Amino acid sequence: MDYSEKNKLKARDLGINTYRENIIFMRADCPVSISEGLKALTRVVVHKNGKSIVATLYIVNSNIISNGEAGLSSEAMTRLGIKDSEHIFISHLHPIASLSKMRAKIFGKELDETAYSEIMKDIASGRYSNIEIAAFVSACAGNNLAVSEMISLTKAMIATGTRIVWNKDIILDKHSVGGLPGNRTTPIVVSILAAAGQTIPKTSSRAITSPAGTADTMETMTNVTLSIEQIKEVVEKEGGCFSWGGAVKLSPADDILIAVEKALEVDSEGQMIASVLSKKVAAGSTHVIIDIPVGPTAKVRSQEEALKLQYYFKAVSETIGIKTDVIMTDGSQPVGRGIGPSLEAIDILQVLRNDENAPPDLKERAIELAAALLKLSGQYENGTEAGLARSILENGLAYKKFIAICQAQGGFREPVTAIYHYDVLSEKDGTVADIDNRKLARIAKLAGAPKVPAAGVYFNAPLGKQVKAGDMLFRIYAESNGELEYAKAYVQSIGEFIKLT
Amino acid sequence: MDYSEKNKLKARDLGINTYRENIIFMRADCPVSISEGLKALTRVVVHKNGKSIVATLYIVNSNIISNGEAGLSSEAMTRLGIKDSEHIFISHLHPIASLSKMRAKIFGKELDETAYSEIMKDIASGRYSNIEIAAFVSACAGNNLAVSEMISLTKAMIATGTRIVWNKDIILDKHSVGGLPGNRTTPIVVSILAAAGQTIPKTSSRAITSPAGTADTMETMTNVTLSIEQIKEVVEKEGGCFSWGGAVKLSPADDILIAVEKALEVDSEGQMIASVLSKKVAAGSTHVIIDIPVGPTAKVRSQEEALKLQYYFKAVSETIGIKTDVIMTDGSQPVGRGIGPSLEAIDILQVLRNDENAPPDLKERAIELAAALLKLSGQYENGTEAGLARSILENGLAYKKFIAICQAQGGFREPVTAIYHYDVLSEKDGTVADIDNRKLARIAKLAGAPKVPAAGVYFNAPLGKQVKAGDMLFRIYAESNGELEYAKAYVQSIGEFIKLT
Repeated sequence: MDYSEKNKLKARDLGINTYRENIIFMRADCPVSISEGLKALTRVVVHKNGKSIVATLYIVNSNIISNGEAGLSSEAMTRLGIKDSEHIFISHLHPIASLSKMRAKIFGKELDETAYSEIMKDIASGRYSNIEIAAFVSACAGNNLAVSEMISLTKAMIATGTRIVWNKDIILDKHSVGGLPGNRTTPIVVSILAAAGQTIPKTSSRAITSPAGTADTMETMTNVTLSIEQIKEVVEKEGGCFSWGGAVKLSPADDILIAVEKALEVDSEGQMIASVLSKKVAAGSTHVIIDIPVGPTAKVRSQEEALKLQYYFKAVSETIGIKTDVIMTDGSQPVGRGIGPSLEAIDILQVLRNDENAPPDLKERAIELAAALLKLSGQYENGTEAGLARSILENGLAYKKFIAICQAQGGFREPVTAIYHYDVLSEKDGTVADIDNRKLARIAKLAGAPKVPAAGVYFNAPLGKQVKAGDMLFRIYAESNGELEYAKAYVQSIGEFIKLT
Repeated sequence: MDYSEKNKLKARDLGINTYRENIIFMRADCPVSISEGLKALTRVVVHKNGKSIVATLYIVNSNIISNGEAGLSSEAMTRLGIKDSEHIFISHLHPIASLSKMRAKIFGKELDETAYSEIMKDIASGRYSNIEIAAFVSACAGNNLAVSEMISLTKAMIATGTRIVWNKDIILDKHSVGGLPGNRTTPIVVSILAAAGQTIPKTSSRAITSPAGTADTMETMTNVTLSIEQIKEVVEKEGGCFSWGGAVKLSPADDILIAVEKALEVDSEGQMIASVLSKKVAAGSTHVIIDIPVGPTAKVRSQEEALKLQYYFKAVSETIGIKTDVIMTDGSQPVGRGIGPSLEAIDILQVLRNDENAPPDLKERAIELAAALLKLSGQYENGTEAGLARSILENGLAYKKFIAICQAQGGFREPVTAIYHYDVLSEKDGTVADIDNRKLARIAKLAGAPKVPAAGVYFNAPLGKQVKAGDMLFRIYAESNGELEYAKAYVQSIGEFIKLT
């Protein structure tokens, strides 16, 4: 790297939030861009004190920055660890070798372990642009990854991240492939297992394409941004935790892929399996239950698809040394009533508190998964697991454990719903016969979830329910009028999607 | 659309060149973003006087814009057709229906004509983000498009653009699939054909992944940014033209796809065929010759691949009513000596001027293609076409026509080479036996081509040439020291790629 005066500029914090992309703004008449021949959208390397980041260049023809200065986005300032007015050095980005492997994947080639390892390393270090990541995500979607590639991808993701080591033989974990609104069993399952004396250091993701991820939901009740040291402390004290995986960079390459998958609303099979299992290995898990909800409008639509996923999960788990069981659950309708972080948190608390209004489906599903984990651990008499899980939940031990974990993570707070709301009413009498989960999820997202935690949908029309004209089918919650109107306009445009007979 | 006060902001031209993406900058405390619940990277609609564009939102936490203002990138200002301080209105972007079709393609589904038509319409109107376009490009690459899909895509691209109507039965055209440095036959072929009295309204593209496209090369000698009216005027007067296709929006959806393909350095088969043929239809062409250079380091690497492309070109041409012939040419080494816009222009002029130093391979290839077009037109006695093409070139009629067309387009100027240069010398004696075209092209690009027209590579070591240690193998031209150093560093890193025996 050339640290000479001619590549030197003064950094200006422009206070621009670009979400994830590093952007650098340079004047058209800037001597550095002229001598280096830099054009708009070029990717350049920005250096400071031995650190460097890759940033996308925008050329400025105005006075928002002065001569001799370069503007940086907030993300770029943070990643480079610098303050306004410090000096930075600019250089060309040398061709990224792994991009040719990425292109080979686009053209349908099967890649080997080395290729995935190089691609993940470059992505984790921020060398790929969002456009390049989008192309890679797209190339890996569908049926484009062989099982051997999923294994390579999983190993490559593991290698870019951290790994937690525990002094125990059995570390439990669970994961739901998602796609079913309100299916927020994790906090309940963790509470039951930890109360049973098991170790379950749960790290969860934020939503990718859904209105809420477990991390989003738990964040409405406690702090989920834990360091590895904090996770170890909480788990050693309480047996379990609710932490956001992204905070500890368990799989940093995957976190970057997920941000682009989110923008694309694409969640691909092979990447999903690599993503889930790499994080389990990183968390130190040894025994894992995978929950696959199956239903016509869930993420997994048929039994065949679920069996294929089961095969992939088992095949990849085996080579990386994790014992995995897959449970297929009913995915024909939302679980519980809340859809959106806070609304789902309210459901969870009702179940844990044995409230008489608690949604029974969420409770039964949590017990089923907790029992499966107890069974997988191999430490209980066969057939007693469900009874044990139920008694721990019903006698309040699970709730006590839940609160204890939240306290250990920094305190517990009650979740709240959003200010604005709008009720969607039934136009006729009848029995609920069919629900489109995807449309419900879309409404919750348009209302602001998960970015606005208190936004979402309160669902009041489960399958088989008798409703009368004028009854509330669901309520939309939003924190701004604009979002409420936006969600309402969408509801009006799609017609009937909760069908009565 | 809600044109009320609460969605109104004053536009500020921030003079930021973002290349192709519309960006809007709004303050974090802006009442519009608060009431509408807008977050960083949200895609929003910006309205003014019945026009609207979709823009990506960056949130600003500084004073580069004042309260009540929104900053716009230069691209966004131009597309919206507004000036600094005018009022704009912001609204949510409603879900783009065709994105679900795009996602289906990512997951390997075959799409129908309606789907392609919707996707192309949304892309042409700027509703897709670069990330979404990258995912679509990637999903269509490799062998992922069936012939029926190529036909649908071609028709959809045609439908988004303009179409030129001629009062003639035979309108000729040619296209090279590219990938061979210096293969710039088009200006010579057009000059020969127009001098022969044929009509050949040539529209060319800029480089996608190569160091120069025909439009880039012609732009070093004349104006290529012609309107449809200007194209008609020039062609009616001179029989041919050299115009940049992007200027006339013959296929605006394709122009947007190409910008992303360029950033990804991915040029996919099905999209290439749709791109080429949609532009031929738009230009009003009836008879087209496709040049496919075949060689181990050309874009098309084998005879089988070339035959597959030939099949696709013929199958799609037939359904859209164009008569097409495919010619496979030698793709084992660069054509001529120049690689880069100006350097290729210099080669072209030498051939047209019958200069004794003119590269003979470029001349012979141009004659071969011109003869094929004369033959395809069906107006000449079989076997006389090559002789006719050669005599038009050698007696100076083609050069006269070339200059006349340039004059009609706004004047002719001599191309110049760049200020900085560096000679790469042979380290030993021997005969040139093997050349890596891709590495030569990469060097020309690192030196600045095609963005810097005078930059590139002067190639001096064709196959079979006897060289001595110290002889110049090629010369790198650059307009800045930074770029020259960048290209040199690459040459040093890749080792021997012009092999001697």
